[in-house]
Amino acid sequence: MSKIPPQAKRVFQGVIFDVYQWEQEMFDGSKSTFEKLRRSNTVEVIPIVGDKILIQEQEQPEKKSFISLPGGRADEGEQPQETGKRELLEETGYGSEDWELWEQLEPYNKIDWTIYWYIARDCKKVQEPQLDAGEKITTKLITFDELVALSDDKNFYGGELAMKLLRLRLEPEKLEVFRKKLCI
Amino acid sequence: MSKIPPQAKRVFQGVIFDVYQWEQEMFDGSKSTFEKLRRSNTVEVIPIVGDKILIQEQEQPEKKSFISLPGGRADEGEQPQETGKRELLEETGYGSEDWELWEQLEPYNKIDWTIYWYIARDCKKVQEPQLDAGEKITTKLITFDELVALSDDKNFYGGELAMKLLRLRLEPEKLEVFRKKLCI
Repeated sequence: MSKIPPQAKRVFQGVIFDVYQWEQEMFDGSKSTFEKLRRSNTVEVIPIVGDKILIQEQEQPEKKSFISLPGGRADEGEQPQETGKRELLEETGYGSEDWELWEQLEPYNKIDWTIYWYIARDCKKVQEPQLDAGEKITTKLITFDELVALSDDKNFYGGELAMKLLRLRLEPEKLEVFRKKLCI
Repeated sequence: MSKIPPQAKRVFQGVIFDVYQWEQEMFDGSKSTFEKLRRSNTVEVIPIVGDKILIQEQEQPEKKSFISLPGGRADEGEQPQETGKRELLEETGYGSEDWELWEQLEPYNKIDWTIYWYIARDCKKVQEPQLDAGEKITTKLITFDELVALSDDKNFYGGELAMKLLRLRLEPEKLEVFRKKLCI
């Protein structure tokens, strides 16, 4: 739905967003300039450590502190699972040999952008985190019920995941399938 | 949270999105270029006609047909309630003398953009719809329960409203408060 048509031209290249425009034929045959954006895909990781889920509390310049899953933007040419592995390692120092794509979503019609959610089971600490100059991150282990309850937490940065968790709360059988997928 | 700092410069002006950039000091004192977007605020209207809610089925060029509330983008300098009145009239031909702001939300951290939801009670048909060349709209009256059920409908274009409805479904007392607010 949020794909940019092949005839679109890139009219601006930013540090996060590129802008594309094209002449769109309307229902009456007239033409109008349409516009969509493209940004790097992003990946969020649900890392399982023992019987807990690792989340992070994070500060970034020009933002209130927030709670999130580890994750971030894909580098040029990087596949989603690689992004997940790299971000988990950089942000938390943890690694996993057991990755599974859980869900993916294009959240916004006017942006060519996909969010991928990966489950990373049986995570082990393999190095110290390597944060960049725009990140202050502390990690925390929470239970499955606490993860689900994040869907009500105003400091949780992950509206799309919150929506998925709200839907699961309305369907306890599917919530149980999700819990089993995490192996906890 | 999605406000653009005053020192930001507009580096691109599009038909929907304007791009702003600024030099942001990082935690270690280094600088990095940060980027945010601005777009016109949007308004969605919950129009009450008798004991039903008016929704629309819409086609637009380059989009699958979808279900939505009446609404649209604010014109330059237009206040949210004016946008709601204008869009309701243009898209459906209905008007109301009883408007109330129900909720507002900035859905996306990297875009300076607010969505406003208005309740328009006791709507009456006052003219024929005046659609532009990029709209094909038919209207439909639905019950309160059908409105709430739209939160599960994949063709419903309104992820943020769907999220609010999901939360209400988890809290029946608040759902009842919402129903009473609609006077149905």
